[in-house]
Amino acid sequence: MRIAIDAMGGDFAPQINIDGTLKALQDFPAAKILLVGDEPQLKDLLGKSSTSIPAEISQRIEIVPAEGFVGMEEKPMEALLKKPNSSIINCWKLMAAKQADSIISAGNTGGVVAAGLRTRLFLPKVKRPGIAVVLPTLKGKAVLMDVGANPAARPEHLAQYGVMGSVYARKILGIEKPRVGIMNIGSEDGKGIELVREAKDMLANGPIKNLFIGNVEGRDLYQGGADVIIVEGFLGNVILKVSEGMADMMLKTAAHYITGSLNEEKQLAQQAFQKLAHKYQYSETGGAPLLGIDGICLISHGSSDGKSIYNAIRVAHEFHEKNINQDIIDTLCTEK
Amino acid sequence: MRIAIDAMGGDFAPQINIDGTLKALQDFPAAKILLVGDEPQLKDLLGKSSTSIPAEISQRIEIVPAEGFVGMEEKPMEALLKKPNSSIINCWKLMAAKQADSIISAGNTGGVVAAGLRTRLFLPKVKRPGIAVVLPTLKGKAVLMDVGANPAARPEHLAQYGVMGSVYARKILGIEKPRVGIMNIGSEDGKGIELVREAKDMLANGPIKNLFIGNVEGRDLYQGGADVIIVEGFLGNVILKVSEGMADMMLKTAAHYITGSLNEEKQLAQQAFQKLAHKYQYSETGGAPLLGIDGICLISHGSSDGKSIYNAIRVAHEFHEKNINQDIIDTLCTEK
Repeated sequence: MRIAIDAMGGDFAPQINIDGTLKALQDFPAAKILLVGDEPQLKDLLGKSSTSIPAEISQRIEIVPAEGFVGMEEKPMEALLKKPNSSIINCWKLMAAKQADSIISAGNTGGVVAAGLRTRLFLPKVKRPGIAVVLPTLKGKAVLMDVGANPAARPEHLAQYGVMGSVYARKILGIEKPRVGIMNIGSEDGKGIELVREAKDMLANGPIKNLFIGNVEGRDLYQGGADVIIVEGFLGNVILKVSEGMADMMLKTAAHYITGSLNEEKQLAQQAFQKLAHKYQYSETGGAPLLGIDGICLISHGSSDGKSIYNAIRVAHEFHEKNINQDIIDTLCTEK
Repeated sequence: MRIAIDAMGGDFAPQINIDGTLKALQDFPAAKILLVGDEPQLKDLLGKSSTSIPAEISQRIEIVPAEGFVGMEEKPMEALLKKPNSSIINCWKLMAAKQADSIISAGNTGGVVAAGLRTRLFLPKVKRPGIAVVLPTLKGKAVLMDVGANPAARPEHLAQYGVMGSVYARKILGIEKPRVGIMNIGSEDGKGIELVREAKDMLANGPIKNLFIGNVEGRDLYQGGADVIIVEGFLGNVILKVSEGMADMMLKTAAHYITGSLNEEKQLAQQAFQKLAHKYQYSETGGAPLLGIDGICLISHGSSDGKSIYNAIRVAHEFHEKNINQDIIDTLCTEK
């Protein structure tokens, strides 16, 4: 499989993308990586580690030139217009031309999504792609979707997120019959709830009606009340970022409080807290898929390191092997 | 001050409301409590503990009869129509008749809010009341508003939540110049963002423009990036409940993991985790105010215990003493 990596994307790019690439090519002998970005810079960086790259690996790396990139703080739409040959746009061009099966980017998320939506490279029947993330729960793991690709969702988009999320949960998390819920609150009326109510009707009568468990509430997310939770993108994005900030706060607070309560084993506890914090890090999950694309697109966290990029390549590989897109198409096409 | 307590509200009502009342009357000699609910049942319960209630305390308790109550699982609007003399409705009638300064309820939140909104007992200039909660952050505490009173917010509502939240943060949290932010995501367009953008313009030009710091992101909430964070009610409610579920999951996971890593001081760590969990409990904060009401309304958690109700009475007392409503009126009236 051929993976186009937005080599200029990420707070610590391009080095992280090269690090992840070199490690992944050792473990995935069938993978070929297209490093998309500033050619002289990438050549230079690859050259610096040249003594340690065996020919078998370097043969599977190709540098694809690009002009500029979308900065983390730039407004996506403006930046894409100004830089028509930027690294993320060129990644999408490669996928549209079938020269790449997958895209991985740790760059500006809005830029990755906007560049992708412009290609209209959607799976048959898909109306709007959405970003899915896998989160830990008390009972295992759950998929939350959409976390920000689509801030103007319509009911039919949410209903499709249920389908795509359920396929992802089945194939990637190995949950045979994922319980799919839609995020709601107890109240009876209101704007947010109208969107949810219409989506709910579609889900209850659509292709995954046997998996759909109806409304879930915020508390269910981390308590494992569902395996797939559908949310509108603005809400999903806020939930994800609130969670990140809360996990960090709680681990810091708990580490301080608990180690302060111990006598002899403070250091042991401190080490355990560090390991625990590590478990919650996004670098472990690699990247969040933009589902609904005719191809594979994984969005990695802005502060990704080489390990994150390695893991994203691993997930892209798994996504490809398990033929997730065909499964999404098949499920959507059972719809009346 | 006279506090009407929805004696039938809460998963463990009415006992919790009697427990909280009896304890609070000892500590707040100026308080008088109206226990609103099923008269025979309340009399009976008070009678059972009668030997231990000094006359000085029992003189300050009055039972106000009500017929039925809004159950935790009932649809608020339907229940209110069916039970026009239910405990929460009678609480609001007492406040409307100026026979009570405050209402406290651990009952169905939707019911408390809907019954309140029907009275139209709003402060001058207030368009829609909202619920404010105080949350812990890495840097101290922050106010999040609205967490579910208003699921159909308009920009002017959000702008007013900024004003009310800032007064609450100043008076209750003691933050002289609270930084007020509005929850947003990085994306450039979309429905959710339009509401936020319009509210933002109003805030930047309104009575608290000198406190307004613009957009904040989800991560800022628990990291202390602002002292007051404005959100639309559906989103706010989901954030609050996601946080509850996450705090519980993280404490359980961390307790298991950390104590499992220790040798001699497992028990000490376990005790420290229990104390920490206690610190995060809502019983400590007492209740969330419905701000914008001409009076005081505190909404306690459904699973409140006597201590929660005691703390809600304490907060109602503080709210009254600090004259928060007058401050809200004054700030709103500086608006052009």
